[in-house]
Amino acid sequence: MRELREAITRYGQAIGNDIIKVDMFLNHRIDTGLLFKMGEELASRFREEKPDLILTVEASGIALALTTARAMGDLPVVFAKKTATVVQSPDVAEAKVYSFTHKRENVIRVDKKYLPQGSRVLIIDDFLADGQACHGMMALCAQTACTIVGIGIGIEKGFMQGGNNLRSMGIKLSSLAVITGIEDGKLVLADD
Amino acid sequence: MRELREAITRYGQAIGNDIIKVDMFLNHRIDTGLLFKMGEELASRFREEKPDLILTVEASGIALALTTARAMGDLPVVFAKKTATVVQSPDVAEAKVYSFTHKRENVIRVDKKYLPQGSRVLIIDDFLADGQACHGMMALCAQTACTIVGIGIGIEKGFMQGGNNLRSMGIKLSSLAVITGIEDGKLVLADD
Repeated sequence: MRELREAITRYGQAIGNDIIKVDMFLNHRIDTGLLFKMGEELASRFREEKPDLILTVEASGIALALTTARAMGDLPVVFAKKTATVVQSPDVAEAKVYSFTHKRENVIRVDKKYLPQGSRVLIIDDFLADGQACHGMMALCAQTACTIVGIGIGIEKGFMQGGNNLRSMGIKLSSLAVITGIEDGKLVLADD
Repeated sequence: MRELREAITRYGQAIGNDIIKVDMFLNHRIDTGLLFKMGEELASRFREEKPDLILTVEASGIALALTTARAMGDLPVVFAKKTATVVQSPDVAEAKVYSFTHKRENVIRVDKKYLPQGSRVLIIDDFLADGQACHGMMALCAQTACTIVGIGIGIEKGFMQGGNNLRSMGIKLSSLAVITGIEDGKLVLADD
């Protein structure tokens, strides 16, 4: 996606050999117009899968999930939570997720009633690296007997194995931009 | 705001005397259409304050901040973070916030470069109870010499003092719905 590639080229930073910082437009400061274009593009790629709802995980997945949901006719968005609250339902689905960025394991959880059995679920996340968050969300869907119709990603780290592993499982996975590597401190992007 | 009042009446739950659960449409499952109407309404209330950007705090403030930003001509959204990451800038503004819902103290932080000195900042959050999150975001703005032009809230707990304290400071604070109390296990809403 051209606009996203331009934003990555202009604002993205490589940190070391494997960390990509895009918080100028995606996951700390949000470029609102860009996020809506990204949502429209993901919607066009998954419309024929006819999802009933979008599942993401807090916090930085929420913006892209919401703009995609808007472009698909105001689908509901469910975001899995990383912290238990005092008002949490006892009937939750849970999965463990190791965060590459935060270097720690989180438990993500969702109230089962927000993933009704048999729902067609589109998973959306801003980033895909080793795929842990996606596998966590897939585990939540398995616990609630939902069908995953696809996974839509903002930026995929193509030099990590998360994307290929998911594709090899037969999942329809589509990423708006793929970073294939870091060379001389610069991000290298795959062609669209 | 009529649509929000209807959602609260239909789906909101009182837990004990002081906790309000609205995760069916606001902060776990998101009613996308409703969130966009809420954003349009907040935009109409704050348009004349001419904000340069919107500041919120992860995670549940992001959706309302983004829909408000969209309705104000794609303003940038900055969300303060509750966890430090390995890619965090060393030049951050920080503030302590006690979370009433989670019963614990968080530190919220924002990279100072995303709150440029002199910016006109509209603070948006989904919920206002004792006002801790708002005071935290105001502290971030003070550290970066930004001007707070207003605070827009989804649901205010009118029986707690956060809203009145902020108004008594002369801040333009506007809430789309105000819950004045919990009676016999039911939420009582103020008239619009």
